[in-house]
Amino acid sequence: KPSAVAVPKATKYPNIELNGMLHIDGGVVAQDQANIDLYGDVDNSLGFRRARIGVDGFITEHLFFRLVPDFALSGRPSFRDAYVEYRDLPGIGTIRLGESRQPFGMDAQTPASELLFLERSLSFALSPFRQTGLGFRNHNEDESVTWHGAVFGYTTDPYGNSINESGFGAAARSTAILWEDESAETLVHVGADYAYLHPADEGLRYRSVPEYTGLQRGLGASIAVMPSFVDTGFLDDATSNAFGLELAAVRGPLLVQGELVASVVELEAGDSATFRGAYAQAIYCLTGESHGYNREFGHFKRLDPKCPVSEGGCGAWELAARFSLLDLEDGPIEGGTINDLTLGVNWFLNRHTRLQFNYIHAWTDRAPVGLNEADIYASRLAVDF
Amino acid sequence: KPSAVAVPKATKYPNIELNGMLHIDGGVVAQDQANIDLYGDVDNSLGFRRARIGVDGFITEHLFFRLVPDFALSGRPSFRDAYVEYRDLPGIGTIRLGESRQPFGMDAQTPASELLFLERSLSFALSPFRQTGLGFRNHNEDESVTWHGAVFGYTTDPYGNSINESGFGAAARSTAILWEDESAETLVHVGADYAYLHPADEGLRYRSVPEYTGLQRGLGASIAVMPSFVDTGFLDDATSNAFGLELAAVRGPLLVQGELVASVVELEAGDSATFRGAYAQAIYCLTGESHGYNREFGHFKRLDPKCPVSEGGCGAWELAARFSLLDLEDGPIEGGTINDLTLGVNWFLNRHTRLQFNYIHAWTDRAPVGLNEADIYASRLAVDF
Amino acid sequence: KPSAVAVPKATKYPNIELNGMLHIDGGVVAQDQANIDLYGDVDNSLGFRRARIGVDGFITEHLFFRLVPDFALSGRPSFRDAYVEYRDLPGIGTIRLGESRQPFGMDAQTPASELLFLERSLSFALSPFRQTGLGFRNHNEDESVTWHGAVFGYTTDPYGNSINESGFGAAARSTAILWEDESAETLVHVGADYAYLHPADEGLRYRSVPEYTGLQRGLGASIAVMPSFVDTGFLDDATSNAFGLELAAVRGPLLVQGELVASVVELEAGDSATFRGAYAQAIYCLTGESHGYNREFGHFKRLDPKCPVSEGGCGAWELAARFSLLDLEDGPIEGGTINDLTLGVNWFLNRHTRLQFNYIHAWTDRAPVGLNEADIYASRLAVDF
Repeated sequence: KPSAVAVPKATKYPNIELNGMLHIDGGVVAQDQANIDLYGDVDNSLGFRRARIGVDGFITEHLFFRLVPDFALSGRPSFRDAYVEYRDLPGIGTIRLGESRQPFGMDAQTPASELLFLERSLSFALSPFRQTGLGFRNHNEDESVTWHGAVFGYTTDPYGNSINESGFGAAARSTAILWEDESAETLVHVGADYAYLHPADEGLRYRSVPEYTGLQRGLGASIAVMPSFVDTGFLDDATSNAFGLELAAVRGPLLVQGELVASVVELEAGDSATFRGAYAQAIYCLTGESHGYNREFGHFKRLDPKCPVSEGGCGAWELAARFSLLDLEDGPIEGGTINDLTLGVNWFLNRHTRLQFNYIHAWTDRAPVGLNEADIYASRLAVDF
Repeated sequence: KPSAVAVPKATKYPNIELNGMLHIDGGVVAQDQANIDLYGDVDNSLGFRRARIGVDGFITEHLFFRLVPDFALSGRPSFRDAYVEYRDLPGIGTIRLGESRQPFGMDAQTPASELLFLERSLSFALSPFRQTGLGFRNHNEDESVTWHGAVFGYTTDPYGNSINESGFGAAARSTAILWEDESAETLVHVGADYAYLHPADEGLRYRSVPEYTGLQRGLGASIAVMPSFVDTGFLDDATSNAFGLELAAVRGPLLVQGELVASVVELEAGDSATFRGAYAQAIYCLTGESHGYNREFGHFKRLDPKCPVSEGGCGAWELAARFSLLDLEDGPIEGGTINDLTLGVNWFLNRHTRLQFNYIHAWTDRAPVGLNEADIYASRLAVDF
Repeated sequence: KPSAVAVPKATKYPNIELNGMLHIDGGVVAQDQANIDLYGDVDNSLGFRRARIGVDGFITEHLFFRLVPDFALSGRPSFRDAYVEYRDLPGIGTIRLGESRQPFGMDAQTPASELLFLERSLSFALSPFRQTGLGFRNHNEDESVTWHGAVFGYTTDPYGNSINESGFGAAARSTAILWEDESAETLVHVGADYAYLHPADEGLRYRSVPEYTGLQRGLGASIAVMPSFVDTGFLDDATSNAFGLELAAVRGPLLVQGELVASVVELEAGDSATFRGAYAQAIYCLTGESHGYNREFGHFKRLDPKCPVSEGGCGAWELAARFSLLDLEDGPIEGGTINDLTLGVNWFLNRHTRLQFNYIHAWTDRAPVGLNEADIYASRLAVDF
């Protein structure tokens, strides 16, 4: 009698699926007089921080395709991921061509759908982030060590185009799990980052909002409601070498994470300036869940509540705190400095849905006004599939 | 021997599906000289009134998600529905957060895919329509009585953003089935509507095209081909209390529907003005089909032809007539008055496809020219899934 | 014993599927001094030539729906196909209403996903291409002869709208297979084309880039990186009668194809001018595959590699060469003349993925500078599903 052997059903290619995301934000900004003098009166916002419908999946067994327009962000619609990957190349790993987040920084590598605060930290301003180029990534056998590298056109516009006199950049990131213990839900992550930026035409520019973006109005979402609190302006013919260090750990319901970033900029006249950013954050889950870790990209993931609201539970609840700083003042450049304290509450109704509240206090020092402060109260409903 | 009990297959979540819509419109406008003097020469249009690809479905059992960009309407792409709903909350019903049609008016609550004329009536100009906010809705056990309420940012731009010094609005609608007899395909609907509008910054503005929108050109579809025939302009610091009454009935192939709307506006200087709108329409189905009724949202649905063209039938044919008026003249405000007579023919090839023709005659009285007239001949192919 | 009769499973309608396309382009332009004097210094480009997510499929058995926004092309997003078709009408064939490629020219009828060079030939500038209108098509029983006709609004903007004082056009194309031998993978195609263009408002305009489009920047992709090397400018009150001839053949791995196009333009003052375009191209497949032929639309298809890379093969490799010309100088019109030589290499990794490289040399003669030259080096990764 022949035994019944289970034959796995062959996957049919192309095998492409829909994805979607809505981030509905509301925010109120309370400014002191010096802040109003510098940046004007900031309107209140209610609306869409992100609104995406996209596709991804495998064209053939190793060929991965992802295209995600965003209907809310600057460029409206802009591209948030538009790339093709060839995976599992022997000795190389994965190569990727197209527009995506470049490998520099743990916060920058964390997708918007996995962020534990409303916005990334101030030091994120020194990351090249989304650019169009060619990258590769690989890892050791148990994925405890990863290395990613990329070259890209710089700067890339919101539509994924780098159109100029050959501006370019390069970025590299390597991460390692220093220690892990699955039974205790414990893991320690370290990472190192490097980026070289050689922009063309307009020049290099670093700037940042105070960890609150507000929304954008007008055609192509071209008018930001929230001004950049610090801003170097365009630095002609400047190039940058940027360095980053990452340290993070999870132990059961507690997650701590921090990064140090420095960008050493060669200016036009032989001058140089060094810009610095840093943050430290702690998140504690009141309901006891622990954040998983994405071993391929080296960042923590959102929570998967043990008792989702749709099954009659109360979901998962978190408290979060972060301190971050960004210093864009050095040498002849007076871009300003900013320090932020952010306190947050996250409620994960289920693994696709969360409500977030952030209180942000920003201390800024920038010419010509000098010291000024702002309080921001913001919340988000985030849903994706 | 155990009996074979049918176990229903569990739905897999997220359970999201694609939807799409194309409205291809052509229109010609014949204006008298006074109309040309007031509004200029209106170009002929052939193209897309609506073009949508979207997604909706359940993220979890009770959590409904809907995101539908429109690639033809003002804002191109704009949002036509971008919201998340939690359904079946005990004692509350459904709560919705995001951008959608607000509960005011039967015509306004009827989706574009179910409209029996090319455009909504003139009185629709007094409805808040699409805004971003928080709403709830519920109904009694047999869904013969419904009540909906919402608060929202006002005004909301085509991208679903309300960015200003805290402009807001509120709307409420309740409907009831006065009488119904399923065997005779008979139903009588009544409804009442209320809205409060407190816009910020630019102020309150009511305006309307003559039940024909034409198309829009330019980046972001920012230039309307069809001017507003009546328009209050922006009324600084004005607030509005608007009231509506709905009465409608279906009996077999005959559908009649009407609404009365009044908006009482408090003006800046202590003045006030009352603007009025109304319409009455009758639709008769020559092939005998009867319009269904959406019990949850209290409006009539399109026809489902008994003999669709794809099965060799002739589809369903309807004749339609509507008279509507809008008066934006009161107190110090000279926004003009307009009366419209619209005659229509609808051919439903199948439940997803219809061809529509409308003839519209508009009588307008507006300073400085006074009385003027226009004839509009317009048609549409509407397909959706 | 009853025999087992296979009952085909009924298709469920609507039966709509997703489609997607990414064309990632990089290009460098080397110009001589005269070329720089005429057109300015052309930036290098890296980014997205096309980025599409769309839907198509059957609404009912005969009713076909297709809506494909493009997020990279001029208009961003613009429509690349937005139409509804009714198929299999007895004696008529298929009728189509909406925006799509109009029937004029073999190159113009070849979809972007099937092109064997990065861009269509210079003579394509004389084709009406994408417009919104009403068309029909049919063929004889074995699909060896086809005829297509259409009327359309002219000009149609990137959003599929024709809004003006009744500008219109008409186009017709008929193709025939002169000789075919399936065993030898041999087929000879001939075709004839006619178009009448009667633009309104701005007037008639022919222009062309040198078979390299580069990318587009700014809101709505409104600024082309690559200037038109030849350009008639807007010709007020001009109408055109255009004629085309097509000849093409495939024999195993060799494909040759050419077209001749002439547009006879009646100018405002009773003058006339005739503009001419032509190209001849040859493509040879080193790995032996043969190009299939689309019998319904009369054009050649891309390769389907016998040994795709995903199955361990080397894919399919092709060499390609094309010579084309466009003459926009005649009578009082000084639009310039251009000749292009293009050499190409195509690597089909699988039937959904290809890498292409083109070298283009353009000789242009245009007032006021006269003769000038440019070399273009461009490549593309094209993926679709």
